[in-house]
Amino acid sequence: MDVYTFEVRTGSGPAVVDLTGEVVGFCRGRGDGLCNVFVPHATAGLAIIEVGAGSERDLWTAVDALLPRDDRWMHRHGSPGHGADHLLPAFVAPTLTIPVDDGVPVLGTWQSIVLVDPNRDNPIRRVRLSFLAG
Amino acid sequence: MDVYTFEVRTGSGPAVVDLTGEVVGFCRGRGDGLCNVFVPHATAGLAIIEVGAGSERDLWTAVDALLPRDDRWMHRHGSPGHGADHLLPAFVAPTLTIPVDDGVPVLGTWQSIVLVDPNRDNPIRRVRLSFLAG
Amino acid sequence: MDVYTFEVRTGSGPAVVDLTGEVVGFCRGRGDGLCNVFVPHATAGLAIIEVGAGSERDLWTAVDALLPRDDRWMHRHGSPGHGADHLLPAFVAPTLTIPVDDGVPVLGTWQSIVLVDPNRDNPIRRVRLSFLAG
Repeated sequence: MDVYTFEVRTGSGPAVVDLTGEVVGFCRGRGDGLCNVFVPHATAGLAIIEVGAGSERDLWTAVDALLPRDDRWMHRHGSPGHGADHLLPAFVAPTLTIPVDDGVPVLGTWQSIVLVDPNRDNPIRRVRLSFLAG
Repeated sequence: MDVYTFEVRTGSGPAVVDLTGEVVGFCRGRGDGLCNVFVPHATAGLAIIEVGAGSERDLWTAVDALLPRDDRWMHRHGSPGHGADHLLPAFVAPTLTIPVDDGVPVLGTWQSIVLVDPNRDNPIRRVRLSFLAG
Repeated sequence: MDVYTFEVRTGSGPAVVDLTGEVVGFCRGRGDGLCNVFVPHATAGLAIIEVGAGSERDLWTAVDALLPRDDRWMHRHGSPGHGADHLLPAFVAPTLTIPVDDGVPVLGTWQSIVLVDPNRDNPIRRVRLSFLAG
């Protein structure tokens, strides 16, 4: 299994970071198989969405409605409403598996792989790519 | 890695389409491994739910509450509220991996694999099945 | 592909059950690869969250807001509001794939693998672990 781990700077606000370039570059030349994308963090997730047309901002609108950043949560530390960040991975999981065809992830035209990070307190995140040939 | 790609007609309304038969047929005779189901579309997802008892309709009730089809979304084109469709895959991901035991996906009695397509504007969808033997 | 199936007692109320120990034990000594966790049930899901700091309780707060346990659902049998249980797996999927590095799942410090079971009517659940070496 081939592995590549890298860091992403997500800054001090909620961030949607496009990882597609890294995934495409990692898979290049590796043939057929499955690529797993994984973030080893308890307050981040991964999604496949279109980027560049507003959905990154829309995603926070939806997440804030589903998981309001207020004092309803039992899990409390860090920024106000941080308990919400700890629930994000239950709905936007930190693992994604993508088929690869002759070194190319078979993403549709409008699909990008993104890191979804609501957490204001962690400016740097790690991402791990694994390629299982088949 | 064995691969099978096929098209599904989802029509002009929100659709939950049962893919279980295709997945079961694809896995038959392939031994042990993992089957990945993937849809290369930015406004569709995949789920494992019970079908035939009302949950397909209930799913739209829940999706419409989570992602209302109104003008709150920045991502705007196509049908009114279409920005909601672009958020669905963040919550109902377009990739699923299912273990296979001697050519049989190990689904529970009430589990079916379904394509979840809220998009009124795309009547035909592609689905890709990949089998990684192990 | 190595496989291990076990049962979990979830009792008669909503349950978040930590499966990390079983997954870590199963992967030990198996080298590099992907570990798939799967629950063959139509009213349960799997998540990777922090446990022990309140997020288990918070998760039910969020799930109850997303999927209220009332009579809005068409799928009706068992406990009141049970139709909600049938939608959980669409948002918290019953399958998770985790990379394994030299027999160790590459979970972050605060990540635990949990079974999410809202169903009051099924006190025992099965979990299947599959390891695909790579």
